[in-house]
Amino acid sequence: MNISVHAEADITAVAHNDLANAVRFLAVDAIETAQSGHPGLPMGMADVATVLFSRFLKFDSAHPNWPDRDRFVLSAGHGSMLLYALLHLTGGDLSLDDIKAFRQWGSKTPGHPEYGHTPGVETTTGPLGQGIATAVGMALAERMANARHGDGLVDHFTYVIAGDGCLMEGLSQEAISLAGHLGLGRLIVLFDDNGISIDGPTSLATSDDHLARFAASGWSVRRVDGHDPEAVAQAIAEERETAKPSLIACRTIIGYGAPDRQGTEKAHGAPLGTEQTAAARRALGWDYQPFVVPIPVLKAWRMIGQRGQVERLAWLDRYERATPEQRDLFVEGRAVALPAAYVLAAAKLRERFASERPKLATRQASQQVLDGIASTIPGLVGGSADLTHSNLTQAKAQTPVKAGAFAGGYIHYGIREHGMAAAMNGLALHGGFIPYGGTFLAFSDYSRPAIRLAALMRLRVIHVMTHDSIGLGEDGPTHQPVEHLAALRVIPNLLVFRPADAVETLEAWDCALGSEHRPSVLCLSRQALPTFRSDARGKNRVARGAYLVVSPDGGRDVTLIATGSEVSIALEAARLLATEHIRAAVVSAPCFALFEEQPDDYRATVLGTAPRVGVEAAVVGDWHRWIGADGEFVGMRSFGASAPAPVLYREFGITPQSIAEAARRSVARRNQGRTA
Amino acid sequence: MNISVHAEADITAVAHNDLANAVRFLAVDAIETAQSGHPGLPMGMADVATVLFSRFLKFDSAHPNWPDRDRFVLSAGHGSMLLYALLHLTGGDLSLDDIKAFRQWGSKTPGHPEYGHTPGVETTTGPLGQGIATAVGMALAERMANARHGDGLVDHFTYVIAGDGCLMEGLSQEAISLAGHLGLGRLIVLFDDNGISIDGPTSLATSDDHLARFAASGWSVRRVDGHDPEAVAQAIAEERETAKPSLIACRTIIGYGAPDRQGTEKAHGAPLGTEQTAAARRALGWDYQPFVVPIPVLKAWRMIGQRGQVERLAWLDRYERATPEQRDLFVEGRAVALPAAYVLAAAKLRERFASERPKLATRQASQQVLDGIASTIPGLVGGSADLTHSNLTQAKAQTPVKAGAFAGGYIHYGIREHGMAAAMNGLALHGGFIPYGGTFLAFSDYSRPAIRLAALMRLRVIHVMTHDSIGLGEDGPTHQPVEHLAALRVIPNLLVFRPADAVETLEAWDCALGSEHRPSVLCLSRQALPTFRSDARGKNRVARGAYLVVSPDGGRDVTLIATGSEVSIALEAARLLATEHIRAAVVSAPCFALFEEQPDDYRATVLGTAPRVGVEAAVVGDWHRWIGADGEFVGMRSFGASAPAPVLYREFGITPQSIAEAARRSVARRNQGRTA
Repeated sequence: MNISVHAEADITAVAHNDLANAVRFLAVDAIETAQSGHPGLPMGMADVATVLFSRFLKFDSAHPNWPDRDRFVLSAGHGSMLLYALLHLTGGDLSLDDIKAFRQWGSKTPGHPEYGHTPGVETTTGPLGQGIATAVGMALAERMANARHGDGLVDHFTYVIAGDGCLMEGLSQEAISLAGHLGLGRLIVLFDDNGISIDGPTSLATSDDHLARFAASGWSVRRVDGHDPEAVAQAIAEERETAKPSLIACRTIIGYGAPDRQGTEKAHGAPLGTEQTAAARRALGWDYQPFVVPIPVLKAWRMIGQRGQVERLAWLDRYERATPEQRDLFVEGRAVALPAAYVLAAAKLRERFASERPKLATRQASQQVLDGIASTIPGLVGGSADLTHSNLTQAKAQTPVKAGAFAGGYIHYGIREHGMAAAMNGLALHGGFIPYGGTFLAFSDYSRPAIRLAALMRLRVIHVMTHDSIGLGEDGPTHQPVEHLAALRVIPNLLVFRPADAVETLEAWDCALGSEHRPSVLCLSRQALPTFRSDARGKNRVARGAYLVVSPDGGRDVTLIATGSEVSIALEAARLLATEHIRAAVVSAPCFALFEEQPDDYRATVLGTAPRVGVEAAVVGDWHRWIGADGEFVGMRSFGASAPAPVLYREFGITPQSIAEAARRSVARRNQGRTA
Repeated sequence: MNISVHAEADITAVAHNDLANAVRFLAVDAIETAQSGHPGLPMGMADVATVLFSRFLKFDSAHPNWPDRDRFVLSAGHGSMLLYALLHLTGGDLSLDDIKAFRQWGSKTPGHPEYGHTPGVETTTGPLGQGIATAVGMALAERMANARHGDGLVDHFTYVIAGDGCLMEGLSQEAISLAGHLGLGRLIVLFDDNGISIDGPTSLATSDDHLARFAASGWSVRRVDGHDPEAVAQAIAEERETAKPSLIACRTIIGYGAPDRQGTEKAHGAPLGTEQTAAARRALGWDYQPFVVPIPVLKAWRMIGQRGQVERLAWLDRYERATPEQRDLFVEGRAVALPAAYVLAAAKLRERFASERPKLATRQASQQVLDGIASTIPGLVGGSADLTHSNLTQAKAQTPVKAGAFAGGYIHYGIREHGMAAAMNGLALHGGFIPYGGTFLAFSDYSRPAIRLAALMRLRVIHVMTHDSIGLGEDGPTHQPVEHLAALRVIPNLLVFRPADAVETLEAWDCALGSEHRPSVLCLSRQALPTFRSDARGKNRVARGAYLVVSPDGGRDVTLIATGSEVSIALEAARLLATEHIRAAVVSAPCFALFEEQPDDYRATVLGTAPRVGVEAAVVGDWHRWIGADGEFVGMRSFGASAPAPVLYREFGITPQSIAEAARRSVARRNQGRTA
């Protein structure tokens, strides 16, 4: 429907209740049509959301990517119809047909909000706690961008609607704690405090005093009646003025309006049904057919969607006067090429690595890369989950970000791997930043749900995960990742790199930084590795996923495929085999996903037709993709153990000798097969 | 060294400082010898631990598995030498040679404490937050066992030493919140409040008021000088009397005693070095050679280790008078066979499933299994992370556990997947319980670090993970596990089951319940599946990991291997192929790990020599192990989408037709290969 907004369509002429009910019933009707969805939150939080959108949220529905808009995050993503209704009503790129196609194949209105799929959706939510933790990253990005570019270009709020589920997830605590510590005063969380979760009353499982808990982390907190629009408005207005992040606990009734379901878990996650839908219409005085929004109400909502136009135009005016670099950062939907200074710095590093061929842990090589390039990329933001001196993630040029001092480029995320990963997603989503953050690879398990969302959203975030195998030694099996490489490689859209020397580390960074639409994990060694790459110039070989390091003259009898710290062991094995006149090709395979994407003929050239031996200090995982069902694999078959790294490699049999032995077996089997 | 304890060796005759310094310097010397480890915590918390062990902890070092002992959990597992020193000094099965072999191959003293590896270690710690969350499960188990068996058999405390890292992890919040809600008054957390983490002062990353935060979740809290033994003793004594779980924040100096390192992050995770070790000896007046503990001090410690003897003997006396069932539950190091009543109930269910052949979601079949067996297994404890009615995890016979009412068999864990998994570990570690708990399979990512620890510890815990594929439909990609099967299968020691019908679901439960030394994940469908198994009696076929469902007469042209909800689709494909005179065998592969363990000839019989097609509504992961490097796989290549399940199966091409097409391609390739 095309609604032209006339001057007389005054927002204030339409009662709050009509605005809110328009949201409620679009949600109810869509869920009823889909026979699937969660009416409880849209009905319960329609009043709060209406107050927020109609009186506070700075946005221009025609320009959902305007960089200085307020961010709105529906952390309780199951209430997606609340967001879709708001986007549609305010004139976003979401038609009534889209609403009617809720939860259907190919629609713009999937079950949970998906970033990149529906214009106006700021982040993908659904897995609980992710929204609020991502919003912390957005609010942090706002302050950091403000510190860099000033109030004229960056000056906005981040609002979150979160439910009990989000607040019960431990992730929320990491987020709350970080936001409080950094004093992110422009973050305002509207808590849908309805006392109900899926199993029943929240009293079944929790007795937390959320207000006290948030206050303990330095938040400004208050409680309000979520069905009293003036009270909600006053609360938001006042909390916008505080220097602390704010929690407004909105007492609401889940499924507000459905007489037999409201206030109980029955309203949470199932369509109301014909009878309760009709009863809700009667109870709330919404006497319209399904999906019908009366013209005055729709006009009022469309005007709300245009409230931000003037501000946006004023912002554009300031934007026109900004520096070219700033303008580049604020281009909507931009494809940011890495600057020329970066390309030069990277080339210089490469020349040095290739000529000096240092013996370095890849985490050390990574440190040198960061020292060399950090200042060349505007918006590169480092950090670590309290392992800065182990991950080696802080570049010399980077100073820490602190409360009230946001100009720095390094974040002490604390011992909050999950919160870090979610905040990195928020930094990337906000725009203007390329975040990377470090922890041990074994603790990728902690941040995994947020890494998955980065992959689903196709964000450029870079996880620096050091201590990537039993090579970390004495810390033992709790800290030794044996299954994590395999577990990360199966996440779609995620690039998992395991570079084998300093040059490969640089190339892996180059791939990660250049992957605008995919997150990366750099898996780096604790232990020192020789640099075998000596090509000072030329193409990025890591970018092909796998490549031939050694290709024996006159063909090969066996192909050894290895990654990371095991490539140099495989090279040693190849030398051993050469003394027995077994010609071994050696392949370094730093990124399976990129190799998978290469043309068939390239892959065939690399893999060859000789028998293959896989080598990785990890469980076999998906290696059979490369070595075949019965291919030899030299790696781990169990958890690791606590001992010095060289002892572990020996005891677990990941040595040149055992690789050579596996190669001999493979060759013998092949020869036997030929004779038979 | 063999120390006989004489009557005159009065504990009280040895000064607290000597007892504590004995702990400190065993730690310092072991770390110095290993040139690896974390001296900061043992030095800082030696006073607190000495007070706890010498005055409160109920234990008998000669019987570390005495069921009614107090549990002591070192959540800050990097301080392992504190625990090893205490175990050695109190006369546990840990010699001075073991201490000297700290962090060496094959030693009993690995870098982080490992359950099952070192007698007296109650749980594996190191990944931060896990200890405190596991301890919540132990404390819960204590109350539940007490409710079942009375004060005479079960009456003990659970003590935890946790550091800043543990408390910053979101997992700790889930644990704290659950413990507060359930009123676990016998849980006492001693917080090593030293203000230092790895990166530096904790003020770099956190401003939390931990006392206020714990209080907000219903804990009794206080602060104490951690180097004042009397103050610590008074705090513990008083907190033992509160009805709430207790937090005692012990202000300590990290690395206490090392003049140039104490109170800074330098003391945290590196050996002190010769100079600082000597300086610490001087500063603390510990004028002994490395590893030397003066005889009076050692005698005093040994007496501390025997303090609990009398109590244990009195307990044994009561134990002798307990019922046979109770005695069975409290056998140390027991191998609990499933009771006859269970075997009967399972057989009955199987007969019914096999004869009625119901069309049921496997989560529904699981519900029926639980209804049938729950009351036959003492100590079976169910629960869900707020998805009871979706996971179908609550058996009819199970009533909820509540604060002050612990006799029930079902736990509302709240929206705390990670906390649930860790608490389940604690329930299993405590003894007397077989815990299972539910969530959606996609959210296994949230609980993954605790699942990993269960696998490392070889605990019998059972994760019921429903909604196991795109078959969950409209909730969309955030909730659809596409990579989780593969990601779980790579964890060593973990059994991942994906049953295909009601009979397989029963068999999977049977395997999981019978796997005393391995955790299990049951991946169950949301959508209904036909029951194809009609063998009312006979062996558990799931126990073999994979087996032939259809084996065509006269050999096969192709083998279709599928799991879970895709087995019935593969069966349909086989029928399609039969009309074209292509003979397709169909293999159901509910558990890769168990199949891997079968004898070669069994595996060969099942897999056959015909070309193979893998079918699973998930990414390919490690399927090439079964189908070969170039084997056909019908599954997912991306994240899912939001739509009704049948639409998703069609759109993603997981249909009988696409399987048949893949089979035809495989057969054609094989024939071509033969002709060529």
